[in-house]
Amino acid sequence: MTATVHRLGGAASPPSLDPMIAITAHDMNCVNAVILDRMQSDIPLIPKLAGHLIAGGGKRMRPMLTLASAAVLDYAGTRHHRLAAAVEFIHTATLLHDDVVDGSDLRRGKRTANIIWGNPASVLVGDFLFSRSFELMVEDGSLKVLKILSNASAVIAEGEVNQLTAIRRIDVGEERYLEIIGAKTAALFAAACRIAAVVAERPAAEEAALDAYGRNLGIAFQLVDDAIDYVSDADTMGKDAGDDFREGKMTLPVILAYARGDAEARAFWQRAIREGEAGEAELAEAVARMRETRAVDDTLARARHYGQRAIDALGMFAPSAAREAMVEAVEFAIARAY
Amino acid sequence: MTATVHRLGGAASPPSLDPMIAITAHDMNCVNAVILDRMQSDIPLIPKLAGHLIAGGGKRMRPMLTLASAAVLDYAGTRHHRLAAAVEFIHTATLLHDDVVDGSDLRRGKRTANIIWGNPASVLVGDFLFSRSFELMVEDGSLKVLKILSNASAVIAEGEVNQLTAIRRIDVGEERYLEIIGAKTAALFAAACRIAAVVAERPAAEEAALDAYGRNLGIAFQLVDDAIDYVSDADTMGKDAGDDFREGKMTLPVILAYARGDAEARAFWQRAIREGEAGEAELAEAVARMRETRAVDDTLARARHYGQRAIDALGMFAPSAAREAMVEAVEFAIARAY
Repeated sequence: MTATVHRLGGAASPPSLDPMIAITAHDMNCVNAVILDRMQSDIPLIPKLAGHLIAGGGKRMRPMLTLASAAVLDYAGTRHHRLAAAVEFIHTATLLHDDVVDGSDLRRGKRTANIIWGNPASVLVGDFLFSRSFELMVEDGSLKVLKILSNASAVIAEGEVNQLTAIRRIDVGEERYLEIIGAKTAALFAAACRIAAVVAERPAAEEAALDAYGRNLGIAFQLVDDAIDYVSDADTMGKDAGDDFREGKMTLPVILAYARGDAEARAFWQRAIREGEAGEAELAEAVARMRETRAVDDTLARARHYGQRAIDALGMFAPSAAREAMVEAVEFAIARAY
Repeated sequence: MTATVHRLGGAASPPSLDPMIAITAHDMNCVNAVILDRMQSDIPLIPKLAGHLIAGGGKRMRPMLTLASAAVLDYAGTRHHRLAAAVEFIHTATLLHDDVVDGSDLRRGKRTANIIWGNPASVLVGDFLFSRSFELMVEDGSLKVLKILSNASAVIAEGEVNQLTAIRRIDVGEERYLEIIGAKTAALFAAACRIAAVVAERPAAEEAALDAYGRNLGIAFQLVDDAIDYVSDADTMGKDAGDDFREGKMTLPVILAYARGDAEARAFWQRAIREGEAGEAELAEAVARMRETRAVDDTLARARHYGQRAIDALGMFAPSAAREAMVEAVEFAIARAY
């Protein structure tokens, strides 16, 4: 019965997030109500700034994963609403701080909060949302969930610092890169899925399976994002293509192109990444060099590998519309690059 | 028996923090061991940056209050070691973010982390320490403590945003100022003391008394700090005098001098605070105008009021060396200004 789990690329029509959105729609309304309620404060700037990002067209991917995982487990309670909101608050706090750290001016096609209200406000409202997320977890009262999410938060911060210290370091290899994205992205995906099994009081193996689904999906997701940064533009992505390149971020496309390049290619990457010679001409050259070395293609091949692992992790659950939707979410994550 | 609680100003020799340091010395060694252990990470920048601030000569005032409160209650366990470390991590995270928000370059007489390692690293290591503090609380396992400290964290962030939106707002009055310092400073002092009663499993009235002690001490502490900013220099304070003035921060000395000033004085304060005309000459004029209006003196009178309330809150506890030390800590906090 579990052999019906799809294989990546098997779908006839383009994969979509719509089934997962449909399956979680009712619960998501409850989550949104918690989010709106708990981002309030007597200090008007807090809901204003938080709302800019929270209402700003995000996919609510992480809380949706909590809800979809609960659906796969046939969980009938409501505890996951508050916890999914906590997960989204952690994510939003991270985004606010990321945009300060990266000096970003565009996210999801809108001006970033740090550009509109300044870095100080973004840092502090991020801290507020982060604290609020813990208040929500404490209200739920599960020490196990608190442990999972406080650990994920610490791991995310470690991953961000790890990434920061890897900036402009052309010697960063694939292993360290995987460590970074495993921490800064995949840890929260994993935790978002895992906590559904905790509230549904399912055995450790199911917790682990949902964790593995989320973790592998998170890695695939980030790999695709990092590939898209070299093949897209602001209109389709809501962020500027080449951002990572200009910031000297060591993402897998660069790592592969550098590793596979000859001496002349390596000199180019050193100038671009280490010295920051990264204008429009250099970006075009970078993309051409990635094409020659199949660096983007193989980044996407790696993404498919992790995507397949995510799908296979669902094999232990009974087939259901929710499980199908979680499979298709992986296919969607990959297909964004094509 | 409780009538032996001191009155402020009654001591013959200058009040000191030494008795509280002595009483908590053994426990503080345990707290320091937890702090050193839990600020570690595989990412070398994290312990390096965190250690700069944590080892950098801070008084450990907040964890010391947890330990002293536990001593007043004759608590015989060790749970407070981990929780005091969590309190210090929250405080350290706040300092890292504050220095980014204020653009400070000097703290405790040393260059700030944001100057040495940059704002991004300070933001992210702050996030890490904040997450770690919650991991420590989760390990302790008390949902009541988690609730107190997660609430305090959210209140601190709200207070910081409140302060940020009050910058250069000459119309901010004493009530809003008290709201701000009650949140950004006093909330953590209160929580640090209160959690000792929780781990010692004492009645609600003792929890409330320790909370009141911490809260009033925190307000007194901040009032004195804000006064000192107009009467001190970098050598004695480890920070630049006039920082608040240059940043256009609405602290009580400014609020009183403005409220008590004539039209000409108000025009001066508007130029200085609102328009940012705040050079050396203006700082000297500000100090002179504060002297005329007794703005600093009366800020300190307010501090003594809160200090006395802190001391009186201890009245319900049996006399002990620990209680005397907590009384003297209040006197010390006030005496810093003289």
